[in-house]
Amino acid sequence: MKVGFVGLGRMGQGIAGRVLQAGHELLVYNRTPEKAAGLVKAGARIAASVAAACEGREVVITMLADDRAMDQVAYADGGLLRSLLPGAIHLAMGTHGVDCIRALGAAHAKAGQILVSAPVLGRPDLAATGQVAIVSGGPAGAVANCRSLFDVIGRRTFDAGTEPESAAAIKLANNFVLGCAIESMGEAFSLVRKYGVKASAMHEVLTEGLFGAPAYKVYGKIIAEEDYDRVGVTARLGLKDANLALAAAGAAGVPLPSANVWRDRLLGAISHGDGDRDWSVMAREQARASGLD
Amino acid sequence: MKVGFVGLGRMGQGIAGRVLQAGHELLVYNRTPEKAAGLVKAGARIAASVAAACEGREVVITMLADDRAMDQVAYADGGLLRSLLPGAIHLAMGTHGVDCIRALGAAHAKAGQILVSAPVLGRPDLAATGQVAIVSGGPAGAVANCRSLFDVIGRRTFDAGTEPESAAAIKLANNFVLGCAIESMGEAFSLVRKYGVKASAMHEVLTEGLFGAPAYKVYGKIIAEEDYDRVGVTARLGLKDANLALAAAGAAGVPLPSANVWRDRLLGAISHGDGDRDWSVMAREQARASGLD
Amino acid sequence: MKVGFVGLGRMGQGIAGRVLQAGHELLVYNRTPEKAAGLVKAGARIAASVAAACEGREVVITMLADDRAMDQVAYADGGLLRSLLPGAIHLAMGTHGVDCIRALGAAHAKAGQILVSAPVLGRPDLAATGQVAIVSGGPAGAVANCRSLFDVIGRRTFDAGTEPESAAAIKLANNFVLGCAIESMGEAFSLVRKYGVKASAMHEVLTEGLFGAPAYKVYGKIIAEEDYDRVGVTARLGLKDANLALAAAGAAGVPLPSANVWRDRLLGAISHGDGDRDWSVMAREQARASGLD
Amino acid sequence: MKVGFVGLGRMGQGIAGRVLQAGHELLVYNRTPEKAAGLVKAGARIAASVAAACEGREVVITMLADDRAMDQVAYADGGLLRSLLPGAIHLAMGTHGVDCIRALGAAHAKAGQILVSAPVLGRPDLAATGQVAIVSGGPAGAVANCRSLFDVIGRRTFDAGTEPESAAAIKLANNFVLGCAIESMGEAFSLVRKYGVKASAMHEVLTEGLFGAPAYKVYGKIIAEEDYDRVGVTARLGLKDANLALAAAGAAGVPLPSANVWRDRLLGAISHGDGDRDWSVMAREQARASGLD
Repeated sequence: MKVGFVGLGRMGQGIAGRVLQAGHELLVYNRTPEKAAGLVKAGARIAASVAAACEGREVVITMLADDRAMDQVAYADGGLLRSLLPGAIHLAMGTHGVDCIRALGAAHAKAGQILVSAPVLGRPDLAATGQVAIVSGGPAGAVANCRSLFDVIGRRTFDAGTEPESAAAIKLANNFVLGCAIESMGEAFSLVRKYGVKASAMHEVLTEGLFGAPAYKVYGKIIAEEDYDRVGVTARLGLKDANLALAAAGAAGVPLPSANVWRDRLLGAISHGDGDRDWSVMAREQARASGLD
Repeated sequence: MKVGFVGLGRMGQGIAGRVLQAGHELLVYNRTPEKAAGLVKAGARIAASVAAACEGREVVITMLADDRAMDQVAYADGGLLRSLLPGAIHLAMGTHGVDCIRALGAAHAKAGQILVSAPVLGRPDLAATGQVAIVSGGPAGAVANCRSLFDVIGRRTFDAGTEPESAAAIKLANNFVLGCAIESMGEAFSLVRKYGVKASAMHEVLTEGLFGAPAYKVYGKIIAEEDYDRVGVTARLGLKDANLALAAAGAAGVPLPSANVWRDRLLGAISHGDGDRDWSVMAREQARASGLD
Repeated sequence: MKVGFVGLGRMGQGIAGRVLQAGHELLVYNRTPEKAAGLVKAGARIAASVAAACEGREVVITMLADDRAMDQVAYADGGLLRSLLPGAIHLAMGTHGVDCIRALGAAHAKAGQILVSAPVLGRPDLAATGQVAIVSGGPAGAVANCRSLFDVIGRRTFDAGTEPESAAAIKLANNFVLGCAIESMGEAFSLVRKYGVKASAMHEVLTEGLFGAPAYKVYGKIIAEEDYDRVGVTARLGLKDANLALAAAGAAGVPLPSANVWRDRLLGAISHGDGDRDWSVMAREQARASGLD
Repeated sequence: MKVGFVGLGRMGQGIAGRVLQAGHELLVYNRTPEKAAGLVKAGARIAASVAAACEGREVVITMLADDRAMDQVAYADGGLLRSLLPGAIHLAMGTHGVDCIRALGAAHAKAGQILVSAPVLGRPDLAATGQVAIVSGGPAGAVANCRSLFDVIGRRTFDAGTEPESAAAIKLANNFVLGCAIESMGEAFSLVRKYGVKASAMHEVLTEGLFGAPAYKVYGKIIAEEDYDRVGVTARLGLKDANLALAAAGAAGVPLPSANVWRDRLLGAISHGDGDRDWSVMAREQARASGLD
């Protein structure tokens, strides 16, 4: 398949690499072209602009940091809306707000193009080995056309139905549930520490019991070891996700009280200088609020 | 070992049965003696009072519904404090507040007796087959003396150290983390439903991903199927646990914002008539708050 | 009228003084009798026990620190329930939980006595000059009999109806609204400080506008001047009130999300060493949570 | 002074009328020109476009509904940035986000123009009689030049300093404190109703005591009378303000837990069909959450 790719951060590089290895013809673009070096060496061609990355493509994948970047890439002169072929698919794999995705879907439809939203669940290191999960939303035919790509990119694809924003909502909800799991561990650890129990002991009780899953194992370990400089997702990035979840909920009339707690701990962490540490540092912020740090 | 047992609810019957099967000499007491019938048939002797259940016992296990029941059983005329032999162990296996346990530990020490707090993690059906986990807290020698009992009662025992209230705190924290997991699923499901996604689809994404653990599998299924009449723990009982967690946190100067959310959803559920349904009905309360129910 | 008085803290002394000045025959009791000195000098007689303070009294007023003190004074051997004359009135003017008041009302009724709950709104210095407000709840006849006392004790009495716990609920709700006002100022001040605005400037905008009332004037000034050592009510006492409000709400199935916020800020303040400062120090805790302190 | 005016909603008409009466030469523009009729009759000239409303003006006042409208009016072709004279003042009197105001201030500075932010405190009916308060932020000289306008528009002007966003932050904080006052009354009323107390009785206790200010008198009355169809500000508009306050706080790293509560009650009210009622309808949403409605 003739595939374009815009956005070569760590996650983007991993996914693009998978697509390339599977034998697709890949045209890549990144604002800072250096990041394309590995892919070019592996056989990808580099495009000089977003518009160039759309030339002759059946599908253009974007993996962008946020809605602002998407707006830039999509709506600018020479952006996707003006450059994609009629009938071509914009496969948006980043984490975006439901408003952003909804507006973009409408804009693509108006331009005779198709938006498929397919955010990815998993850390960048999993992307390089095809171990992420994918949630896809978009017109059924377009999603079917992306199937061969999904199969090389991820270990499993969940079908969110025909609306791109449904996939976006699932991704935001997944991150939100994770944020809550981390926050609840942070609160639990602060509580038991006041009664003479080590965080690691509480962590063991949780993960040997009802909570024997990666969310608790991975993040609980970071928290118990206060290893916040081993950064997967920064507190700042976590805040972006919290804001997107709250915005999606707000637009739909859904109070999310746990998301408020999540956001507030991230804000506190950032205000105390931990914005660039792993987002599980909200457990430290909880400890701070409890007079423990 | 000569063991007394006070409190034969479902959980108590299961545990007492395990103790009996392991060959210990068991003397049982329950306010309504009918509940002892199965155990008596299996070889236990019935005691006519709490005091009688203490006669000649090395260890008396209590499995009581709440702190009020414990206060009654422990402090009344003919209660444990006046009836236990010097040096005997009160092995408290119910879920109690840290204040209750702390005061009780001091009272037993003053009376020349020993309190070991060993709350149980797991539903009653797991107790009957020895599949629960135990968290033990108390003087090291006394805990060691209880080891053979723990080995037949549970699949695993976590050592919370020498303070009985440490074990109580861990139990409360564990239930709190579970309450948060349920609440966060409820919020997530309400969110995605507004974007056209079924709760069952979101549930699958969670449990196939970072949340593949009983907390999410079991409770998420109940919520997705709105099967709240399959009651494990009622909303009212869940509220008791939330209040105990908040009281423990309050006494220790720990704000627990997620516990507030948990408690408020339970309160709302109770106010809307769902107090006797499974406590995961807080997801319905979340849906109600979102205009979905 | 023959009046007994139990509990001579600052508030109690002020109220007892008013009763005495109005010509009532006053018999006073306090655990530490020194506090009665001023009243004795002014004509009160001192009683050696709670029971003695009930002798021949038509009304016995209590002004006690908390529910625990009330339980002691009411239920002990020689307590009010055993000592009050048949038909006599226990006029409880402290701040108590609705459960405490409800149980006490039933106990007095069973003993042939009458409970009137009449908590006081206002600081102790206002009590000495009769400037407090009173909220009364109890059987209509008994409340009518207390009218002449209310008239000398306070500037105004609100009638909460025939249930003593209604008056207790109003008092708790009043303190809760005050806690929220303080908390919201604290949050607002932290917010504007981050945008270069002094707390005092924000305070002026508020109190010159929609918030020109003592709640905002008095407490906003303390906060703006960070004058937390000028203590009216300590953070610890504020926490007692927050817990009582939340308990009353919990028993009635009412989620009070703002009370959670109020309680959590007090807990944080206490954990950071500010428990004995004025409860408006929760604004400092808010600043701390915002990285401002 | 030669004044332009863009945005003739109820508030805008009131303010423009005051400016006109004071003898200033007024050029007005509104998207729907009908709303200018009264002003034209009173001597204003109508402009056919934003650009035309800037012609020869020393000051152009905007009173726009939200940030989106401001972005349109300011940045579009023929918008304020391209049309205002060098050195002229854009006097923005609406309620806007701090980000919007900050970006706009920089854009005006770059274009050789000056932004003064001067949001108004008070309802539209007060604007017509000059009874609103004003909070001004901007370069000192420009603010001084606006003084004569402020004097006819409002009863009092608060000086927020030289940064336009400081004034915006104060306005948002003021609305936030009001939202909290309303919310806390709603919670208090739900609480006491469960103990047999009418909302109107509680309202009287509050407003005769520490809360004798318009925020409590006006809104408490609406709530006690459930008179939510007497709309000052709709729940939907209130939500806009809550979102702006939370965005300002988020950008500054300030957790605002009370604002979360405020926002969530508004969201719930909107989800239950009360979005177009007065924003104090969040008290009804609180009652609903308490099983009272």
